[in-house]
Amino acid sequence: MGCPGVAAADSSRKAQRKAAMPIQPVLIAGQWRAARSSGVFHAENPATGETLPGEYPVSAWADCNVALDAAVAAAEKLRATPAGQIAQFLSLFADRLEARATEIVDIAHLETALAKAPRLSQVELPRTTGQLRQAAAAVGEGSWALPTIDTKLNIRSCLGPIGPVVVFGPNNFPFAYNCVSGGDFAAAIASGNPVIGKAHPSHPATTRLIAEEAFAAVAAAGLPPATVQLIYHLSPDDGLRLIGDPRLGAAGFTGSRAAGLKLKVAADAAGKPIYLELSSLNPVIILPGALDERASKIADDFTGSCLLATGQMCTNPGFIILLAGPTTERFIAAVEQRFSSAAPAPLLSSGVARNLAASVQKLQSAGAQLIVGGAAPPGPGWRFANTLLRVDGARFLAESKALQTEAFGNASIFVIVRDAAEAATVIDHLEGNLTGSIYSDTRGSDDALYAGLAPRLRQRVGRFLNDKMPTGVAVTAAMNHGGPYPATGHPGFTAVGIPAALRRFAMLQCYDNVRSARLPPALRDRNPNGKMWRLIDGQMTQADAVPRS
Amino acid sequence: MGCPGVAAADSSRKAQRKAAMPIQPVLIAGQWRAARSSGVFHAENPATGETLPGEYPVSAWADCNVALDAAVAAAEKLRATPAGQIAQFLSLFADRLEARATEIVDIAHLETALAKAPRLSQVELPRTTGQLRQAAAAVGEGSWALPTIDTKLNIRSCLGPIGPVVVFGPNNFPFAYNCVSGGDFAAAIASGNPVIGKAHPSHPATTRLIAEEAFAAVAAAGLPPATVQLIYHLSPDDGLRLIGDPRLGAAGFTGSRAAGLKLKVAADAAGKPIYLELSSLNPVIILPGALDERASKIADDFTGSCLLATGQMCTNPGFIILLAGPTTERFIAAVEQRFSSAAPAPLLSSGVARNLAASVQKLQSAGAQLIVGGAAPPGPGWRFANTLLRVDGARFLAESKALQTEAFGNASIFVIVRDAAEAATVIDHLEGNLTGSIYSDTRGSDDALYAGLAPRLRQRVGRFLNDKMPTGVAVTAAMNHGGPYPATGHPGFTAVGIPAALRRFAMLQCYDNVRSARLPPALRDRNPNGKMWRLIDGQMTQADAVPRS
Repeated sequence: MGCPGVAAADSSRKAQRKAAMPIQPVLIAGQWRAARSSGVFHAENPATGETLPGEYPVSAWADCNVALDAAVAAAEKLRATPAGQIAQFLSLFADRLEARATEIVDIAHLETALAKAPRLSQVELPRTTGQLRQAAAAVGEGSWALPTIDTKLNIRSCLGPIGPVVVFGPNNFPFAYNCVSGGDFAAAIASGNPVIGKAHPSHPATTRLIAEEAFAAVAAAGLPPATVQLIYHLSPDDGLRLIGDPRLGAAGFTGSRAAGLKLKVAADAAGKPIYLELSSLNPVIILPGALDERASKIADDFTGSCLLATGQMCTNPGFIILLAGPTTERFIAAVEQRFSSAAPAPLLSSGVARNLAASVQKLQSAGAQLIVGGAAPPGPGWRFANTLLRVDGARFLAESKALQTEAFGNASIFVIVRDAAEAATVIDHLEGNLTGSIYSDTRGSDDALYAGLAPRLRQRVGRFLNDKMPTGVAVTAAMNHGGPYPATGHPGFTAVGIPAALRRFAMLQCYDNVRSARLPPALRDRNPNGKMWRLIDGQMTQADAVPRS
Repeated sequence: MGCPGVAAADSSRKAQRKAAMPIQPVLIAGQWRAARSSGVFHAENPATGETLPGEYPVSAWADCNVALDAAVAAAEKLRATPAGQIAQFLSLFADRLEARATEIVDIAHLETALAKAPRLSQVELPRTTGQLRQAAAAVGEGSWALPTIDTKLNIRSCLGPIGPVVVFGPNNFPFAYNCVSGGDFAAAIASGNPVIGKAHPSHPATTRLIAEEAFAAVAAAGLPPATVQLIYHLSPDDGLRLIGDPRLGAAGFTGSRAAGLKLKVAADAAGKPIYLELSSLNPVIILPGALDERASKIADDFTGSCLLATGQMCTNPGFIILLAGPTTERFIAAVEQRFSSAAPAPLLSSGVARNLAASVQKLQSAGAQLIVGGAAPPGPGWRFANTLLRVDGARFLAESKALQTEAFGNASIFVIVRDAAEAATVIDHLEGNLTGSIYSDTRGSDDALYAGLAPRLRQRVGRFLNDKMPTGVAVTAAMNHGGPYPATGHPGFTAVGIPAALRRFAMLQCYDNVRSARLPPALRDRNPNGKMWRLIDGQMTQADAVPRS
């Protein structure tokens, strides 16, 4: 997805250059304090291209250093904090976000151009508070940690806090993936870790308001003050240094592949888990029977999904595989008509607009033909015409790397294959993706094709769909918002879905022959809340353990 | 632990040099066939230093290439294979190993100098077959995959096969960690993946016999023939190429830190999970009250643990923290006496002996003083005198990196700290370890010290023990044989302990709106065996799912 989470400082605006308003403080070590900064930056209104008020610091390493020390001390205290108190923080924070919803939505709309309603106020904010409350419930219940007890050997284990977590938020979900309120934040806190949030520089004021509420909730719940810290921006080098710092436990990053892979190298070298959500084309295969049966409905679904939030979704359907033929040509014409007639909404930033234009250009250079769109329309703000491209299977196979360039935004490419065998080969050339969909007819005429293609696509994606576009990531325990590299860094984990998402920010902690009073509550004989599921001597149970010795 | 899993070819013995016996074939693509080799090697009898009969090939890349293609095809078939059939293979294989136990134990004794009894025949082989049977039971039951169903949204997920797995076995457990019978093998197969085993070159004949039984069991269970493949040796470059190959799903490696970290770089760059078990000092803190109470018992425990299998255990207690004082000096003298009077048993190979001598030398160069041992005794074979070193806390802190050099074998270092504060600082300087132990008295006099030190040690180790030495890794669901980097590559996973170990070789697979007949059995409404635990609409249950729509 979109813009790098780690970007260069705006060198034209140095900290020493006095602005009309004071530079916004950062939240470090339990207080809002002046940043040690190497520069400043400001947000823009994507709908108009105008600079928004407020100067935000690009923190120097000194800020990271103090934040890391404070996080280590907070982590130590959090490990001795009852689960209920952490759950209380998450709930209080959700309440506080709702109480300040109008102000937060207004600011986020200015900074992102996403609609106040339904998107920001009725979809994303409720999703965000919902995630926080689901995380609170999971902490209170405790089964997420997979507590396991062998009473005969007196060996007991469960997942426990991994240490301070840095979260790099993306540009496209100012609440639900925000570094101090989103899914990574909720999961990292719920598994008992302090979070150092690194804001996305495209929406700093939104992040500031959210962090104010998080910090107030930290105080109200009596958690260590440095449980939540906020830095707005970093130089790329400091970002890498932060990720590789020995004081860190793990990191979460959602953003561009280029920035994420650099962070991955730094984390890997330091032996630190990093959970990445990078690019994804989200291939959709539409089989001929489905087009015969319901082409118009599928064209509506696809257009809605592809243009949702101007296409700036991690799960945007960016790559459509169709079998050559007149039905497919009619379908493409129908989609073209829909794309032409829909007015393009603003993109999140000038950077997104620039990258989208460059990606579309790159796809064309690799042999894709433009069906519609392909340039910025006249007018203010950051927009790009709704764009469709096409390429045939043979050409795709000749340039499969370049033709998998993610065009983050309102653009998709149709890959027209000549037959089932070529479709299979195209799938085999796909990189790892978050999602993959197959549309088939309901009368069985596509079943043979489906049987040949589905197992191949299954292995290349995290979430596999039937007859459905991939946008709309439901926050449910059964969700997988993850997938094989390079969609993420490890195919075993999901960023969305509780309790699974919590397990990313945890280490497996075994206790061997440890005296009872020294055990964490989840591993004592007595079930701490009567509800926690534990694997005791091979049996899943909510009962107390009965020592055999 | 010990010798590199990827070693240089023995260039003095080229394939073209005709030996008395033919070069042993490799097991690739469903047949025992002549290797495409770049050289040959042979095993040695560590007790005598003599070359053992049998020439084994160092496979060239061509062997890896064919094995990878065969593994991809086998993986595709395995994904459609019923769980019960995979379970059947694991059980049949265990039976076959037992039926051939005498021959396998005899060969392993020759190649490793480990005792036939109790070690090989009564401990390690039963552990190995036990692991295989536990894995079989886990596959049949199915809960290991954490199946999760949201009936309202019709979103369903579980862990599924990650793809072909390469397992690099270590030198020190010829059965229980063998690349074609050990914990990684059992886990990778149980989660539905074919395995390419890379033998440890110190026990090729043992591995050959085991692979013969595995291959026979593959045929008997009707699995794809390339479910199990075996290569004996590789050049370091081919090892790295294998790990980074796009056809691979994941890798498991147990061996030296130097070799493992090179493989990690290759796997990380390719975005492939690699599960490493590298070095570990397994720190043991013995508090003063415990020494007052039971010094002699602890000296016995420590000596037994440290010299077990000539110290060649991943969990060998190599680093003992003691508080300065006369009780500690008496304890050290008691251990010295025990170390002096125990005859050193053979080491696993000339390489282990060489590395051990070099490590002890490095520790001395960094300021450690020799208490006893420190050199090879006269006589045949590969031996090293039982060795103890000591260093004070201040010196340790000045050279903490060098003084954490792992001396794999029958050697340990005592770190004598002046007080609790220095003990805490020493712990804070420890790298990640598999285990950490604290001995304290039973009357409460150590409780304050324990309370200050235990939380620090807890975060730096995978398995935390009280009053117990770390050797003896019980195969139980509650075990954690893992730990923070550089003990392993990710602190959330364990190499021992079923079902958790299976989850390493799996990807999270979500099904969104997928038609019922197209779902894997574990995710259909009906519980496939009535025993599988599934999280359905937020409730753990063994019942069928009842669709709400």
